[in-house]
Amino acid sequence: MNFSFPSTVSLWETLEIALEGPSDGNPFLDVQVSARFQFGNRRLDIKGFYDGGGVFRIRFLADRQGTWDFQISSNVPPIDGLSGQVSVTAPQKDRHGPVRVSKQFHFAHEDSTPYLPVGTTCYVWTHQSNALQKKTLETLKGSAFNKLRMCVFPKHYDYNTNEPTLFPFEGSLEDGWDFQKPNPEFFRHLEIQISALKGIGVEADLILFHPYDRWGFSKMDAAADDFYLRYLTARLAAFPNLWWSLCNEYDLMEAKATPDWERFAKIILENDPWDHLRSIHNCREFYDHTKSWITHCSIQRQDVYKTSELTAEWRERWHKPVVIDECAYEGNINWGWGNISGEEMTRRFWEGAVRGGYVGHGETYLNSREELWWSKGGELVGSSPPRIAFLRRILEEGPQGGIDPISMGPAYWDLPVGGVVDKFYLFYFGQSQPSYRVIDVPTTGHYRVEILDTWNMTVTPMPGLFSGKLKVELPARQFMAVRATLAETIL
Amino acid sequence: MNFSFPSTVSLWETLEIALEGPSDGNPFLDVQVSARFQFGNRRLDIKGFYDGGGVFRIRFLADRQGTWDFQISSNVPPIDGLSGQVSVTAPQKDRHGPVRVSKQFHFAHEDSTPYLPVGTTCYVWTHQSNALQKKTLETLKGSAFNKLRMCVFPKHYDYNTNEPTLFPFEGSLEDGWDFQKPNPEFFRHLEIQISALKGIGVEADLILFHPYDRWGFSKMDAAADDFYLRYLTARLAAFPNLWWSLCNEYDLMEAKATPDWERFAKIILENDPWDHLRSIHNCREFYDHTKSWITHCSIQRQDVYKTSELTAEWRERWHKPVVIDECAYEGNINWGWGNISGEEMTRRFWEGAVRGGYVGHGETYLNSREELWWSKGGELVGSSPPRIAFLRRILEEGPQGGIDPISMGPAYWDLPVGGVVDKFYLFYFGQSQPSYRVIDVPTTGHYRVEILDTWNMTVTPMPGLFSGKLKVELPARQFMAVRATLAETIL
Repeated sequence: MNFSFPSTVSLWETLEIALEGPSDGNPFLDVQVSARFQFGNRRLDIKGFYDGGGVFRIRFLADRQGTWDFQISSNVPPIDGLSGQVSVTAPQKDRHGPVRVSKQFHFAHEDSTPYLPVGTTCYVWTHQSNALQKKTLETLKGSAFNKLRMCVFPKHYDYNTNEPTLFPFEGSLEDGWDFQKPNPEFFRHLEIQISALKGIGVEADLILFHPYDRWGFSKMDAAADDFYLRYLTARLAAFPNLWWSLCNEYDLMEAKATPDWERFAKIILENDPWDHLRSIHNCREFYDHTKSWITHCSIQRQDVYKTSELTAEWRERWHKPVVIDECAYEGNINWGWGNISGEEMTRRFWEGAVRGGYVGHGETYLNSREELWWSKGGELVGSSPPRIAFLRRILEEGPQGGIDPISMGPAYWDLPVGGVVDKFYLFYFGQSQPSYRVIDVPTTGHYRVEILDTWNMTVTPMPGLFSGKLKVELPARQFMAVRATLAETIL
Repeated sequence: MNFSFPSTVSLWETLEIALEGPSDGNPFLDVQVSARFQFGNRRLDIKGFYDGGGVFRIRFLADRQGTWDFQISSNVPPIDGLSGQVSVTAPQKDRHGPVRVSKQFHFAHEDSTPYLPVGTTCYVWTHQSNALQKKTLETLKGSAFNKLRMCVFPKHYDYNTNEPTLFPFEGSLEDGWDFQKPNPEFFRHLEIQISALKGIGVEADLILFHPYDRWGFSKMDAAADDFYLRYLTARLAAFPNLWWSLCNEYDLMEAKATPDWERFAKIILENDPWDHLRSIHNCREFYDHTKSWITHCSIQRQDVYKTSELTAEWRERWHKPVVIDECAYEGNINWGWGNISGEEMTRRFWEGAVRGGYVGHGETYLNSREELWWSKGGELVGSSPPRIAFLRRILEEGPQGGIDPISMGPAYWDLPVGGVVDKFYLFYFGQSQPSYRVIDVPTTGHYRVEILDTWNMTVTPMPGLFSGKLKVELPARQFMAVRATLAETIL
């Protein structure tokens, strides 16, 4: 009987135990396998899963360096009681562990390395041709994006009529699906791509359900839903770069109601001992983001005109990180959610950033192949991505751990300011095109002041250091910002 | 004793009776003079005023053709009982009488000629040099603007530090003002300029009070306020092109409260038998526009980002015409209310227009002379005025009597439509940049369909006539609109 696992693994890398077991009957249903991992007083109970061909797997994500012991439980006698030991070594370069909420409104990896989400969206990129998937990964690698919204299930919608290569269950649309028989090949492919994202520094914000469906995956019964979620979590919970997004546009899921989402959340909590980030995304009505299982707000804007300008209000309302995953997409399709300009997309990113939130990107430029980035991936052709990269650079050069909105008083009614009080200030002028503005920096320090052109991506220092009120000459163009960084404290 | 008046006057032109009277004491206070004009059963009681140099005047605006009789009353015996007869002839070319509310949300002159307000703002243009005032009138004459917001009192504010040539009262800032002694020269000058506006087809939206003051006119006591209003209305109520705007930013007038505004409205109602349009303009809080004396809502936007997009909601709220007199100004000054782009100004005009409202313009581009159009008049240098002229043309080519928002159902959540059902439709894409859109025109008619580029000011017809659903190919640029006009009804 095969029972194998690596004897060493680096911190925050997935370790996999393979076990040979019965393949008769329906092993997905009939066989239970799990492992208890122990490290000192720390104990993790992990479910395994059937991967086809008589092979069962248990995946573990080490979160402490040192020697871990494990013992396997199963209803299959030869497997039950197997045990082993794994040595967890120092993390590989650029591995920082799963992303967590940090400082209430922000994010950091488990080792405290700040994580500034700069998201984009390719809903069903893993359901496209291999060539297109390869292109998507190349595009992402060359971009500033470090989070990707993507669905488990294939998508049926405008510009999305092609059939996927792989389905998550045995069966077919014509003959029906056997929801008790997942298709391991489907899930292995998904995992390969989630790992590929990890390799290029991208978090997979995985959408577990969505309403754009012609195959029936949005209308499974409760037993099938729960079985799917238990299987998926057993397979994926040990991936370090994974976020759970329960649904895209949950309120369009006709066959589901609040008790369903709450039950799904419970299943994920029970089956993900690593406590990956969890969210649920609206179309019209926000979900109740005060629910304790929701780690951060995954928002679609509710208003056609005002989107990320509302970030600070949402922070106040839910006391959680605000991630505006859909502020509309840069593109030229027929619908208003998919035809904003690159300027407007960039503006929405900045409006959100200076209010202490994180705006997400998507692109919907029509081409003859109907390969729209927002759904299928491929190439980015819009004008916002380089500007979003510029914003990422500015934020990364700023205080570690993110910026928060700063209330500067009534004179700033038209000028949002974000930063860290007494250290760092970003003043964002947005659509305004002033030729000058008097701004305030604290009198307790000398500040370096730079003029940022967020569209032309330039940083122009003002000579000298400043304290208190200063007049900033501006080029009377839209999309300007000013950055003030503490150079020295006045003693 | 001089007692003179023209024996004929054309309809809707101001007739003036001059009377010689006492000049000793304070004739402004001591002498009452009024006239009762009669035409059949129609009777108008009109107050006169002292114009200095022993001359009293009574102004009458004929609103019926034919012979009117009048009789004068006064507490000065030689004047009391004087009478006369005036023949009112057909109106001059392009004279249509005062503007009234029409069809609940729109405007028309008294002879039912539609009036589409296309307003701009030069708050204190009459307080500038003669050369600049001349320039302002020339600029207006060459523009599409047909309404001007302007103040009686001079203004003290950023870029407004120059002293006016004339003051409304005897006295000085140093020695104090005698609020019981208006300065006739001041008011004669104001009247000359209101008449000059009439000559170029511009309605004077006259602002009676405002808070930007270093002379004390915003802080007169109740007796002085009332005296001023009675004097002003006696002088101006017979001007055909006059609108009363009680205040600019009433809520910034520290020395006034609601009972004051209500009293002022009562004085105007009592002293303006012609019932000119009346409004009051907010800074932050809207006035209660349900008050019966308010003929239309004069709105300053309350939100930095959303302005004229709220027009339909405001119509629903107040059931009166919505005139967004301040949606911010095109310009480049320091404050957000004065530094929007020409594109954004034009967009706000269109967003308001397709929702059945009327947006106003102002311009605040800084120059070395500190001659900003918004306050002093002069020249227009912005990019929105020609586009506003294009909008005016489109509206004038549309249905007489204005357009209303048209509810097209949920598929139009992102695409506002205005017009007249079954006749005329304007679809406005605003910031969206679609490459195509399927739109609906009624199946009960054949429609001419044209693509409007509201920025480049072009009208491109689509060949043929259309009925029901049609796909419109668009250039994937912002600021496009589609116009559909009924060509023939399907029988």
